Amino acid sequence: MTYPPRLSDEQYAALVSDIKDWQITHGSLLKLVHTDEENTVQCQPVGTTFFPTLFPRALFDEAHALQTAFNKLYAAVAEDDEWLLDVLRDLIEVDDLASALWEIYSEVKEEGFVQDLTLGIFRSDYMMHVDSKESLRRPELKQVELNTVSCAGGVHTNIVSDMHRHLHRTGAYHSAQPPNSENLITRSSDLPPNSTLKTISAGLAAAHKAYGPAKSQGVTETCILFIVAADNFNIADERPIEYALWDESIPSYRVPWGHEVLIHTSLSPTRELLYRPASRSNAMEVSVVYFRTGFEIYEYDDIGRMGRLQLENSRAIKSPSILSHLTGFKKVQQALTAPGALERWLTPAEASMLSRTFAPMYPLDDTSSGQHAKKLALDPETASNYVLKPSLEGGGHNVYGAEIAAFLQHTPEELWKSYVLMEKINPPLLQNFMMSSRGLYEGPVISELGIFGVCLWKRVQNGESAQAEIVSELNPSWSLRTKDASVDEMSVVKGYGCFDSPALVDWDVFMSAVKA
Amino acid sequence: MTYPPRLSDEQYAALVSDIKDWQITHGSLLKLVHTDEENTVQCQPVGTTFFPTLFPRALFDEAHALQTAFNKLYAAVAEDDEWLLDVLRDLIEVDDLASALWEIYSEVKEEGFVQDLTLGIFRSDYMMHVDSKESLRRPELKQVELNTVSCAGGVHTNIVSDMHRHLHRTGAYHSAQPPNSENLITRSSDLPPNSTLKTISAGLAAAHKAYGPAKSQGVTETCILFIVAADNFNIADERPIEYALWDESIPSYRVPWGHEVLIHTSLSPTRELLYRPASRSNAMEVSVVYFRTGFEIYEYDDIGRMGRLQLENSRAIKSPSILSHLTGFKKVQQALTAPGALERWLTPAEASMLSRTFAPMYPLDDTSSGQHAKKLALDPETASNYVLKPSLEGGGHNVYGAEIAAFLQHTPEELWKSYVLMEKINPPLLQNFMMSSRGLYEGPVISELGIFGVCLWKRVQNGESAQAEIVSELNPSWSLRTKDASVDEMSVVKGYGCFDSPALVDWDVFMSAVKA
Repeated sequence: MTYPPRLSDEQYAALVSDIKDWQITHGSLLKLVHTDEENTVQCQPVGTTFFPTLFPRALFDEAHALQTAFNKLYAAVAEDDEWLLDVLRDLIEVDDLASALWEIYSEVKEEGFVQDLTLGIFRSDYMMHVDSKESLRRPELKQVELNTVSCAGGVHTNIVSDMHRHLHRTGAYHSAQPPNSENLITRSSDLPPNSTLKTISAGLAAAHKAYGPAKSQGVTETCILFIVAADNFNIADERPIEYALWDESIPSYRVPWGHEVLIHTSLSPTRELLYRPASRSNAMEVSVVYFRTGFEIYEYDDIGRMGRLQLENSRAIKSPSILSHLTGFKKVQQALTAPGALERWLTPAEASMLSRTFAPMYPLDDTSSGQHAKKLALDPETASNYVLKPSLEGGGHNVYGAEIAAFLQHTPEELWKSYVLMEKINPPLLQNFMMSSRGLYEGPVISELGIFGVCLWKRVQNGESAQAEIVSELNPSWSLRTKDASVDEMSVVKGYGCFDSPALVDWDVFMSAVKA
Repeated sequence: MTYPPRLSDEQYAALVSDIKDWQITHGSLLKLVHTDEENTVQCQPVGTTFFPTLFPRALFDEAHALQTAFNKLYAAVAEDDEWLLDVLRDLIEVDDLASALWEIYSEVKEEGFVQDLTLGIFRSDYMMHVDSKESLRRPELKQVELNTVSCAGGVHTNIVSDMHRHLHRTGAYHSAQPPNSENLITRSSDLPPNSTLKTISAGLAAAHKAYGPAKSQGVTETCILFIVAADNFNIADERPIEYALWDESIPSYRVPWGHEVLIHTSLSPTRELLYRPASRSNAMEVSVVYFRTGFEIYEYDDIGRMGRLQLENSRAIKSPSILSHLTGFKKVQQALTAPGALERWLTPAEASMLSRTFAPMYPLDDTSSGQHAKKLALDPETASNYVLKPSLEGGGHNVYGAEIAAFLQHTPEELWKSYVLMEKINPPLLQNFMMSSRGLYEGPVISELGIFGVCLWKRVQNGESAQAEIVSELNPSWSLRTKDASVDEMSVVKGYGCFDSPALVDWDVFMSAVKA
């Protein structure tokens, strides 16, 4: 079975033109920030695949089914500051971002919490994994990471998914050439609709509603505040969420990280967060603070810290709270893979379900597990099967395989504990065409499925410790990013990865495509 | 009364940023065709006003109310080949485009008509006019022209109108500075929703339905064909119409003018128009041919003529037919202004209603009216009050006021009859801010209101002559374009004009804004 279908040169050219035009007319674009002049700005299409990439229906469903337990787990961990401090203590010593966040948390705790609700907008990322010794076996899901702050790509995926379904209905995926294997999409696969934009905006709306009416004296209106990066070139992944909220009559505004936060927001005596848009003389009260930035250390200068502290200190519902932000650190992910760790918060059945998706991960510290990991990492032969990841939230800055030993040798050993060592995931290779500002690509590709989990939880104090109680939860939604199999980095904004959508197929179809 | 509201520098900067982001995320863009590479293409926002421009509610309503009679008139004229030939005979002698179109029509008539339905997608353009001697009087509507082919701007206006209403709901138009006249939009005006995209696609859908099932042997599917310019940078004004049709399960495809028409379409023995997309081995039957190009003489080389002839000869419903295309020529517009002309097709009440919107127009021929016009045109003093327009469909290529005499002196006199002389419209000046690739602008502006009239009519043969019977008609929709008052040209794609939407106000508010 061949997939994607073989197209004639003419069809291929028509497809490229159709894709560009869809992207231009649907905001599937990146701003070229360097062209941002007073009166105009240029933009260009974000990377996209031509065809939906094949994906086993069973694994797609499984990834969705896992999310409720992951929501429960990450909400629970975000309220368990004792466990978190245990896990992060080493990191806080050496890592400026972790220590900045922990300091802010400590100050807020000292002050006393005034908001017991937190909104989680998580994205749990998976790759398919096949044991290299048993390449004929069906792949299984392995979690790459779980993101808890500023989870991006939801809107872009939504648009590309709509585009693939549009191209399909126009017949652009029909090959005029035999064999007719190219009608696979019609015959035996399924292009699932995407509702990630709706899911994210519905989550924010639910938190806004849960916040209730304005509490501060003399204030009548509430609003949601997006904290965004200044000069962001990826506004097309954020703005549509604001517009969707306005369509629900929920006022939503953007404030750039830093100075602007301090200029435009303030705390009332009872710690309501007040926001003053330039256009209004009256303040509005902020119901929800939604962070689309604030995860890079350079953002935590004095002004940045003061801003984040003010937001965190307020009665507004945060997405995420500081602790929920910290649960996205790789160090936490690694600690959760330790035997028995999950059972602190989950039932044995839930724990077993989730842990099946965990790739082996090790700290690089002085524990026996850490000692073992250092040996694996320093020997180029064993290291080839591993990735060294800085214990940050999100992707990037990873060191792969044979380069790990040299990297560690140039890194002071006391900093090693800010890294985790993760066994490489060995994904099956599929075929696709891709287009980004870097060029056209045809060949083997690797996909990463993201599951957006959106839930609102309540901190329930229990003596010294606290627990999370899920108040409401939305059906999970998905994203799919796909990259050239020979490239390690998935970054879409850098033009390596492309937004994609899955063509869901049964195992037999999938396995025959992998072998072809 | 001051309008638009006075904004602080900070509000102004925020507004610019909000506008750019809305445009990027809603396809309010032009392709930069010179950047169209294999793998990417750049685009930038189309020109737009910052604020809706003030417009008298009474005139906005009047323009809509006129459209049914204009639809009736232009449908009737498009079936009256005897009258049209009378009016166009002089032009056909000297103008290559008019003669090319007339030749195609004649060949089709010779062959015999196989389709008696035509879809009109018209745009009747108006400016407000105030007699310069009576500047305190309320302005009235004057028709600039009525376009019958490839009426553009419908989608762009729709998006900018949505944007203005979004900006309004966010409070971006509230001035933080007194006086609070800036709340005019909230207090006493109205931003009417725009449904032009829906109106155009609904018109095409109605024609598609009226065509009925495929008639050609062995063909099961019907589709709408857009005939478009190759390398069009304004795809954002066309593509959304296709997508809207697909959303109604009506297959819609684009074929570039010229060779591609001959490659991808053919006539069945019974003159059904068959279309073969690159992706299908089976042909589809074309229900409606929608021209978004084909109005420039350079398009009528041998291949272009053959293509248009084949389309016109077919059973597909054309939007527009050749004769309907020809009714958009200025020569026709001028002939319709002649006393008593309208009564050939309209009731006296309808005729009187429409003719009130006609500015005085003259031919430059040997009739007594033409002699009079030549005198007016050649005397720089009287010419200053006139515009010389080539008798083409659409805008552009106009010669203004004092330049007319010199222009005519350099034009062979036998070509003069391809021009019409139109009294200048004297519009009231309003204030706005605008942004386009040409720069930012603040100052006096002039707007042009376009009314989209969409109707399907049937040719009813009556001996030698034919009449038009309106089969169905949609509620008219609108567009608004606004330009720097000091510039003659309105072209939006060249960056002179900007898309806009009206803030509808009562006469007293409007008149006080004009005087301010």
